[in-house]
Order: sequence, then structure tokens, then C-alpha cells
Amino acid sequence: MRPFQKEKIRIGLLGLGVVGSGTVSLLQRNRHAIERKIGLPIEVRRIAVRDKSRPRAVKVDAALLTENAYEVIDDPEIDIICELIGGVEPAREYVLRALQNGKQVVTANKEMIARVGHELMEEAARRNLDFQFEGSVAGGIPIIQPMKNSLAGNRIEEVIGIINGTTNYILTAMAEEKTDLSTALKEAQSLGYAEADPTSDIAGHDARYKIAILASIAFMSRVNVEDVYVEGIEHIEAADIAYAEELGYTIKLLGIARRVGEDRMQVRVHPTLLAKNHPLASVHDVYNAVFVRGDSVGDVMFYGRGAGSGPTGSAVVGDIIDTCRNLRFGATGRVGCTCFERRTILPIDEVDTRHYIRMVVHDRPGVLAAISKVFGDYDINIEAMIQKTIKGKQTDIVWVMHEAPCRAIREALEIIRHLPVVVEVSNWIRVEEWND
Amino acid sequence: MRPFQKEKIRIGLLGLGVVGSGTVSLLQRNRHAIERKIGLPIEVRRIAVRDKSRPRAVKVDAALLTENAYEVIDDPEIDIICELIGGVEPAREYVLRALQNGKQVVTANKEMIARVGHELMEEAARRNLDFQFEGSVAGGIPIIQPMKNSLAGNRIEEVIGIINGTTNYILTAMAEEKTDLSTALKEAQSLGYAEADPTSDIAGHDARYKIAILASIAFMSRVNVEDVYVEGIEHIEAADIAYAEELGYTIKLLGIARRVGEDRMQVRVHPTLLAKNHPLASVHDVYNAVFVRGDSVGDVMFYGRGAGSGPTGSAVVGDIIDTCRNLRFGATGRVGCTCFERRTILPIDEVDTRHYIRMVVHDRPGVLAAISKVFGDYDINIEAMIQKTIKGKQTDIVWVMHEAPCRAIREALEIIRHLPVVVEVSNWIRVEEWND
Repeated sequence: MRPFQKEKIRIGLLGLGVVGSGTVSLLQRNRHAIERKIGLPIEVRRIAVRDKSRPRAVKVDAALLTENAYEVIDDPEIDIICELIGGVEPAREYVLRALQNGKQVVTANKEMIARVGHELMEEAARRNLDFQFEGSVAGGIPIIQPMKNSLAGNRIEEVIGIINGTTNYILTAMAEEKTDLSTALKEAQSLGYAEADPTSDIAGHDARYKIAILASIAFMSRVNVEDVYVEGIEHIEAADIAYAEELGYTIKLLGIARRVGEDRMQVRVHPTLLAKNHPLASVHDVYNAVFVRGDSVGDVMFYGRGAGSGPTGSAVVGDIIDTCRNLRFGATGRVGCTCFERRTILPIDEVDTRHYIRMVVHDRPGVLAAISKVFGDYDINIEAMIQKTIKGKQTDIVWVMHEAPCRAIREALEIIRHLPVVVEVSNWIRVEEWND
Repeated sequence: MRPFQKEKIRIGLLGLGVVGSGTVSLLQRNRHAIERKIGLPIEVRRIAVRDKSRPRAVKVDAALLTENAYEVIDDPEIDIICELIGGVEPAREYVLRALQNGKQVVTANKEMIARVGHELMEEAARRNLDFQFEGSVAGGIPIIQPMKNSLAGNRIEEVIGIINGTTNYILTAMAEEKTDLSTALKEAQSLGYAEADPTSDIAGHDARYKIAILASIAFMSRVNVEDVYVEGIEHIEAADIAYAEELGYTIKLLGIARRVGEDRMQVRVHPTLLAKNHPLASVHDVYNAVFVRGDSVGDVMFYGRGAGSGPTGSAVVGDIIDTCRNLRFGATGRVGCTCFERRTILPIDEVDTRHYIRMVVHDRPGVLAAISKVFGDYDINIEAMIQKTIKGKQTDIVWVMHEAPCRAIREALEIIRHLPVVVEVSNWIRVEEWND
């Protein structure tokens, strides 16, 4: 490839919503410094939007707007396409065509990267093009670039993320205000931290895309997002948060990715009792953080705002700057896909972890013996137990178990659930410690 | 420049101490994955050491070692020189000669970068060479590369770092074990967290180099390290930590860099009462963290181990990988020095901040009035006050002041110190809040 021959670098945007307007606004505001860093002028040349008449959060020349995405993708003058519309289609089709047209691509589209990113990265690699997606995970927090560059010497052992701001806000509110999930959700919605339909956040799907992307980079392997175990926070009750507190834990929705042997990995999303000494435990409200353990660097954590116009715009502009530098030096495709290995995801039943179990039992002799026997039959060791009489003849029992496979817990709880002394098994939540 | 023509990339090391052995060990251990990421084989070709007969923490072929640094620097086959000996001279001379020989340079030398980095960067820029120094600040934590890349679109408003592990360990121990500084220091020394002569850490000089480097990148300006105000933790007493706790703060040695107007900046190192809700407040023991506020990204924080063989080796290898990628694509010099602006450091007297003041007074009527009058005369507003009788006729008074210039506090305390009602002004510590 040759160094860049044109007098300026031209950028086309697909989408001018929350992320698009953050991107354009930042490029406008700090243009001078950005151009000095790149060493060439930049120009936002064309922006595709669904409806030209819609009011925008950023001031742009109306002549830049088009309702036809192909007027951006096929513009021969444009060097970099920023795909900021989200979802798999038509984003995938647009990006593929942009790459086929020889354009560099920057995107913040987690679902597209998690589902079909590999196909797009292969197309980019074939053509020595940049294809960057820092904004797809954890908003403005630098995590993809640091994993691909600064930490690239490490064998990454695990990545754990608080990568959904909505659920972190809700869980923080439930803990601090001792309120229940539906109240906290309404509060989050009124503040604009949760969508009118919050399913994708609450049920963990949003976090699932993100941990799939992080695992793929960490373990240098494709990750089939459908194989990622996902469990949302719908079943978390105020009682769980109170017991967690009493036991020295905080409840967080975590994405957990862990290297397993030579050809497997854990990749999962679920609410977790997280030990209070863990660096992630003090990440509150809408903040996100990603914790990475490398064989050389040890434990590092990246913290910041995981969503929003400014933060995600910052990530997109960071990718644009990196791409511009590569363009200028004729070095696009410099850092490509690193999925050199083939790992499969361990089914959740086979995952060894610690467990929290809350149940309601009848307050009569022999209860503990009956339940403990079932745990014992499944080789499940009890680490801690709290028993509290809640009303008349019923008692809450909370257990924390040493490491055991999820299958053992699942099967033991199936039996315990049907013991005559047991009223209900109220909740089962996995537990994470920190051993630094 | 042309893409790389040779069959492999050859690396020469200056120094095989703590950082050097971490670097070599990591290159050996993860060689296969590293070479796939780079796209070319790498070879450690030569290592300069002071004493070949010394035992090493890493196994290397004895034939690689030389006691003559110039056999590494002048070896025409070597592409990248890693300077890992520390100190200004002869490191500066070696690096300059390596650059003049057309070699890429990676270093972890904070003092050299802070004092003479600019001169070396100019030499690198003239020759389109890479000159990288991620390991010079905060060990393995990615901070230089993220600021130069992912966050490059932002106008950085402030950078605050816990960037010295020794003092953070000591302050954590003082707080948790309610012990005094000398006991905590001995403990740190016995664990290898403090040197036999701990002056550079305790007095803040180590942190001063690092905040100077971070400020320079954040504000795109040279920083004269001699202008950076520095105050160590020697004067922190158990009483200060206890009062801080009572007031909702934790005491940390912070490096603080803040943008001031168009051509000035604050750059300072001193113990600080840090509000407990600040993300840096939960950074304990030898861990380091750097907090960055950008105009678009908002608040981000980078956390991890700030020193040691593995962590710093991780940073050096990350820089080596980046440099190798640039070499392969003929794109060295791709990200150069960004000191496009000229800013000077605000003298500490002119810095506006909040303040904590502890004093001992005689327990008699009119004391508060006499002292408050002096503060009032200097326009210093009191936010909080604690008064505790400590022994017989003497009383501890602790004040927290709203924002005021350091000069006003200094001058007021000069007068207060000589009031007949005052036994002593025991301590004066600056205060930082977090408004997210």
C-alpha cells in the first residue's frame, strides 16, 4: 500500500442518532487538535439518516444529509464509513458493501459484531482495510484497543465486565434505596437510563453481545453468541440484596469470560454475588467497568460511562483517528482479527463456581438434616449458612456453597424443591470472589 | 517508507533487571501468540547487562549477554532497542544513539522521559521512528496508548493518578491497621514494596515524573518537571487519617494535572483528602490507578499494578508489539509527540482548591473567634469543623475549607501559627471532591 495521496480524509456516517451526533459534535468541537494528531485535515462529507426532517442534537449542514445510505457507501470520495445505526440488518449489508468498495469502517454496533463480525473482519482482512469497533463495548471506555495493543503480550485468563449501565443502575438503586426491581426500573426509565421496553438490558441480551466480543478478543477465538449462557436480573429480590450485604457481597449483572484448558472457555452473563473487595464491586450507578486478568500484567480494570452520546462518540472518534493515522501511512489493516484459535464454550452445567441459594422452609426439626443430606449426596460443600425465621412457622435459609458444578446445584435443587419440609427454593445466584 | 523486508524482527535489550527479565520472560512464554499478532517472527538478539556473572530471574542464552551497551545499540541487525536501565544518564545517551542509528526505541524510564523525553522524541520524529514508553507510568496499566489513541478525540480536562505503589501501600496500611508511617514503611520494606532508601517514593519524586508525563500527553504541551509542585507523605499522621475518615475522606498521594485556560495547567503531587465516592478512593495497597476526565468521554479510570516485573514487562511487550506492527507496515513514527501547545504550570500559591487543616489550641474562650477572624480576613470560607479536647487544657481543631488559593491558606496559617491561643498548626492537606 502507498501512503495517502489526497489532501484530506473524508468521512461518511450512517446514522445521526445518539452516537452519530456525539461523533459529529466531537469532530466539530475538537477538529483542530484532532487534525494535528492525524497530520491531515478531515471532513464529514455525507450522513445517511432515516428522516431528514427530524430535529438533530448537533448542527450539521442540511446538504450533508441523505435518506439513501448508498449515497454514502458508494461515494468514491469517502475514505471511512462510520456505521452507527445498530442492529444486524441492514447494517451488515451496508458495512460489507463499504468494505467491498475499499472503505475503512468504524462501527459501534455490538449486535452486528457479536453475530456476524467475523465475516466482516475477514472481508476487511482480504482487502487490508481497517475495521474498528471500540464503541461496541462499554461506550467510551477504552477496552478493545488496549486489549489488542497494550495488553497484547499477555495470555488473558479472564475478562469480567459490568457492561450494562441500565441493570447496574437498577441494582445500585435497589441496594442503596432498599427498593424492589420494578420501582428501581421506573426510576431508571424516568432518568433516561432505561428504554421504554427494557427487555434487552434486563434480560441480559445487551451484556451477552458485549461479553461475546470481549471473549473473542481475549481468547483469540470466534464466539458463537448463541452458546453464551444468559440470565437476567428479573428474579433478583430485595431479600437477596440484603442477604448478600450481610455476607459481604454486592449483586451485579456480570459478563464473565474465562479461559478453560487448551480449547474451551466459559462465557456467561448472569447476576452474581460479587465479593466486596473485588475492584468491580465499587462500580455503581450507570458506570461500566471491565476487569482483565493477564498472565503478566495481573489484574487491570477499565472504568467509565458505558453508554451515551459523548462517551460512545469518544470511542468512535478514537477509532477514526487511529484509522486516519493508518490511512496516512498506508498501513490500514495493521491490526486485524486475531481469532487464530478455536475454542468452544463450556455448557453452563459444567461450569464450576460458588453459589448462593435462598429458600423458605417449614420451621420444624430435621429440616437442615434433610436438605444438607441432598447437598452432601451431590458433593456440594457448604461454606456459610444464615437461618432467619420470617413469619410464624416459616424460615428463610440462605446458603453459600464452595465451588461446585452448576449441574450439581441444579439437580440437587430439583430434589430439595420437592422435599416436604421445603416451602420454596426462592433463588439461586452464582458467586465470584477476588484472589489477587 | 517501505514495508519490512527482513524475515524477522530483532530486538536488543539494555538491562536485564526487574523490568528486563519480565520482558524477556513474557516474550519467551507467549512467543507463538505474539508472533501471530505481529505477523512476523521476533528474536531477542542481544542484551546488555552490567555484570554478566550475576544470576538472572529469567533463563537466557549466555551468548546473548554483553557488558558493552554499544554492542547492542550499534548492532546493524537490531531493529528495536528496549532501554530498561533507568535514570537519565547513560540511558539518554544510549537512546539518542539508537535513534541516530535508525532504531525504534521502547523504554520504561520515567525519569528520562520526564526530564529529556522531548529531545528524544524530536530525534525520533525527524527520522520517522517509533519511540514508545507505556511502561514509564503506572507499570502494566495501559494509559499512554489509550490517551494517545482511544481517547485522542477528547479535550482532556484533568488527569489524577495514584501512581506510586509504595506510598499507596503505606497509606492503606496506616488506615487499615491504625498504625503510624514508620511502622507501615517497615512493613512495606519487608514485603519488598519499598526500597531500602525509600526517599524517591515517600517524598513524591517518583510520582512527580509520572504526572509530568501524563500532563504532557493530556494537555499536548511540554512540562518542565522542575515546575511541578511536590510534597511527600512524611508529614501524614495517624490523627489525619482518623479525622479524614470521620469527615468522609481517605488520604492518598495524588498526582493532579488540570487544564487551566488557554495556556496554563496545574501539575502537582501531594497527599490529598480524597472524597470516598471518588473512583480513586477504593484503590488500595500497591495498586495504581489513573483517572481521566475528557470533554466527551466524561470520567474514565484505569486500574492495576503500577510496578513489578510482570506488569511493567507487559507494558514493554505491548509497545514492542505495536512497534513491530508499524515496522511490518512501514509505518513507524505513526503516532509521534503531540506537544503542539505551550502551557506553563500555575505556581502552587495560585492553585484554588479545598483544604483540610489540623491544629492544636488552648482550651479557652475566644479561641474560635480569633482563628476564624484570620480565615475571614483572607476570604477563606469554612465548610466543616471538628473540635476535640485531647488532653487537659488543649484541644484539636480540624477545619475543612471551601475552595481558596493555596497562598491565602499559607499566609493565614502563618498568622494563626503565632496567635497566643494556638499551640501548633499540625497539618495542612489539600482536598479533592468528585462531581460526576
